[in-house]
Amino acid sequence: MNAPTLDEDLEDALAGPAAVGGVAVPGLRRARAWLTRAAEPGSVDLWRWTDDVGPVAATRALRAGTAPEKARTLVGARAEEDASLADLRRAERCGARLVVPEDDEWPALALHPLTVAAHTGGDEPAQQDRTTALVPPVGLWVRGDPPLDGTVDRSVAVVGARASTAYGEHVAADLGAQLGERGWTVVSGGAYGIDVAAHRGALAAGAATVVVLACGVDRAYPAAHSALFQRIVDSGGLLVSEWPPGAAPHRHRFLVRNRIIAGLTRGTVVVEAAARSGAQATARRARGLGKQVLVVPGPVTSAMSVGCHELLREPEGGARLVGNAAQVIEAVGALGEDLAAPVQRPATPRDGLSDLGRRVLDACPVRTGVSAERLAAVAGCDPLEAMRVLPALELADLVQWTGTGWRLAPPPRKGA
Amino acid sequence: MNAPTLDEDLEDALAGPAAVGGVAVPGLRRARAWLTRAAEPGSVDLWRWTDDVGPVAATRALRAGTAPEKARTLVGARAEEDASLADLRRAERCGARLVVPEDDEWPALALHPLTVAAHTGGDEPAQQDRTTALVPPVGLWVRGDPPLDGTVDRSVAVVGARASTAYGEHVAADLGAQLGERGWTVVSGGAYGIDVAAHRGALAAGAATVVVLACGVDRAYPAAHSALFQRIVDSGGLLVSEWPPGAAPHRHRFLVRNRIIAGLTRGTVVVEAAARSGAQATARRARGLGKQVLVVPGPVTSAMSVGCHELLREPEGGARLVGNAAQVIEAVGALGEDLAAPVQRPATPRDGLSDLGRRVLDACPVRTGVSAERLAAVAGCDPLEAMRVLPALELADLVQWTGTGWRLAPPPRKGA
Repeated sequence: MNAPTLDEDLEDALAGPAAVGGVAVPGLRRARAWLTRAAEPGSVDLWRWTDDVGPVAATRALRAGTAPEKARTLVGARAEEDASLADLRRAERCGARLVVPEDDEWPALALHPLTVAAHTGGDEPAQQDRTTALVPPVGLWVRGDPPLDGTVDRSVAVVGARASTAYGEHVAADLGAQLGERGWTVVSGGAYGIDVAAHRGALAAGAATVVVLACGVDRAYPAAHSALFQRIVDSGGLLVSEWPPGAAPHRHRFLVRNRIIAGLTRGTVVVEAAARSGAQATARRARGLGKQVLVVPGPVTSAMSVGCHELLREPEGGARLVGNAAQVIEAVGALGEDLAAPVQRPATPRDGLSDLGRRVLDACPVRTGVSAERLAAVAGCDPLEAMRVLPALELADLVQWTGTGWRLAPPPRKGA
Repeated sequence: MNAPTLDEDLEDALAGPAAVGGVAVPGLRRARAWLTRAAEPGSVDLWRWTDDVGPVAATRALRAGTAPEKARTLVGARAEEDASLADLRRAERCGARLVVPEDDEWPALALHPLTVAAHTGGDEPAQQDRTTALVPPVGLWVRGDPPLDGTVDRSVAVVGARASTAYGEHVAADLGAQLGERGWTVVSGGAYGIDVAAHRGALAAGAATVVVLACGVDRAYPAAHSALFQRIVDSGGLLVSEWPPGAAPHRHRFLVRNRIIAGLTRGTVVVEAAARSGAQATARRARGLGKQVLVVPGPVTSAMSVGCHELLREPEGGARLVGNAAQVIEAVGALGEDLAAPVQRPATPRDGLSDLGRRVLDACPVRTGVSAERLAAVAGCDPLEAMRVLPALELADLVQWTGTGWRLAPPPRKGA
């Protein structure tokens, strides 16, 4: 029997549910596979339209030439091509899969701020530029066994200069090892310098580490890190990419990729950064997402710490100085404080919430109150964590106690 | 003719004006000389009483045993002794003098926050402890030619660990030299490590530098810095002390002395500091006086930077990271920003003012408005600086423009 064509798979997907048993149906996954190759990620307009009509209808419209002009322009001649099945098979051959929003393992809660930003922030110049826009991925190619959501739930990005110093590499490796020892996943970009030092530190601690690549997960870039990436996969870590297998690490893709590093994690630690560097940009995007921005200082005589010190000197920048893993964990794990962390121009009480606060809030039902244990199970946290965060949510009029359980507070009455 | 006795001098002082031609009369200076030897500085109670009754009456009462009990307890058996004339002569022999509040060269404006703190903050535990209290000196023994007020008007304290690293010494020397080159006076404590590196940097730039000693200005402590201190005096710098000539550098005196370093300057730069160190204490006292606290970061692997990073991590601590002299000057010299700098629990608009803001405000007459040039002359700043600061003072309802000049705004009406 021949494999189903893309059109057959898409038709199937339209006929039934999006997922069965926590796994997206084949047609839906194939549509998203097609989209990851058809369009460069990072476009707010394309993401919004796809989110609006759904990935299957979006794929069909793009292939039929009936999609909105902006979307057609972004896809161009790629609309004629279809490597979706080949990409999925190629991924399978290297132990990878495409994780899509319809899958249970999709890290929806971590990526929630990206979703909010894509929905609400479309008119700002940064959102009009594909390399700086805050927009979720249409799907994530993942190489390695563990579920993506569980791996990044307690994760921290450790980023920095490629042209790092021995000092920076020492600190990054130490942070990687100590975060790993304490059960935190280190997420970084797999590049020379700070990235690889952080990954190696985590590996040395026997901890999972996640490399977010700007090329296909079957490729190693830089090639010198090929064995390291394999070891990461073998040690329970993951290689993650928005681009399909075989995709080349084009220069512009690194900047686009950086939002995924910031987006998957609870906070970003900048270990060394030159003035006006990519690591600073990643940190600012983490800040834009309401995530913690943590900065390791260094000698003021070192050009590789100038960017770090710039971040720490930014008035109202919200960057926090950290000197060790304990201080990092205190910042990303501290619940009360985290909840109260200053966020850029908070528009609603919800915007000021920590990742955990949002997760617990999202877990609250509308009508019948449920126990903190139940909320914790849905939010993916310890019951104790949920219980600690609930009083603050109640104070912010976001949840209410019914006498038997917690539920969402009704929206404020007009004129109240 | 024999020299006048202390009692004769005191009687003379009571009969006439406090100063003639901008110089305190001999009896008044002698009273303050006597007080600098009779009582260890730093007592809020003694300072308030002395300020209340005047130094001459205070000296007479202490000698007659009619002073309040608290004052008598602090002076103890020293009330019987009188080395005031000997101290003044000993000072003269080493090119020193006692500068008193009645002299024109008294740095009244720089020390104003100490005066305010001594008047208003007497009930806090820190003000009850002589080593931490914020209280002005009763007089300052000064060795070196230039007037004290002009020398410290544009000054920055550069402080830090004695057990400094090569990195810290390099940074301190560089700061000293670059601040000196740009016309700023470096004030420090003359100790090993960061202090001496900062003084040497300033000297190397041919700039004036001020050593605030915890012993008599005729002594060198540490002795190894004897030649350096002489070179500082020969180069237009000053040695300053609250203690009379010959006084020994007792350990407790260093902590008491530190408030003068913070008090004479516009801001304090901490270059290297261990955890829970004296340099941190100086920085916190500078902050308590509303002065800038500036901190040089270092490697997180260095124990000598831990105290610096602690200061930078203090929430609401107001410490600013600086990496070079330009950033220091930006912080202590920037008028608009300086004016708006966050101060601990500002109670009134006045509390939030910069040093310059307070000086210009204090220079404003109550009734007849005067020109910005006149205010600048009284406040000891450039007319341009005064003009820059006046609009903000007006916005804060502290001053008003009469149509012909500036004067203090009337206090707000009750119930308004």
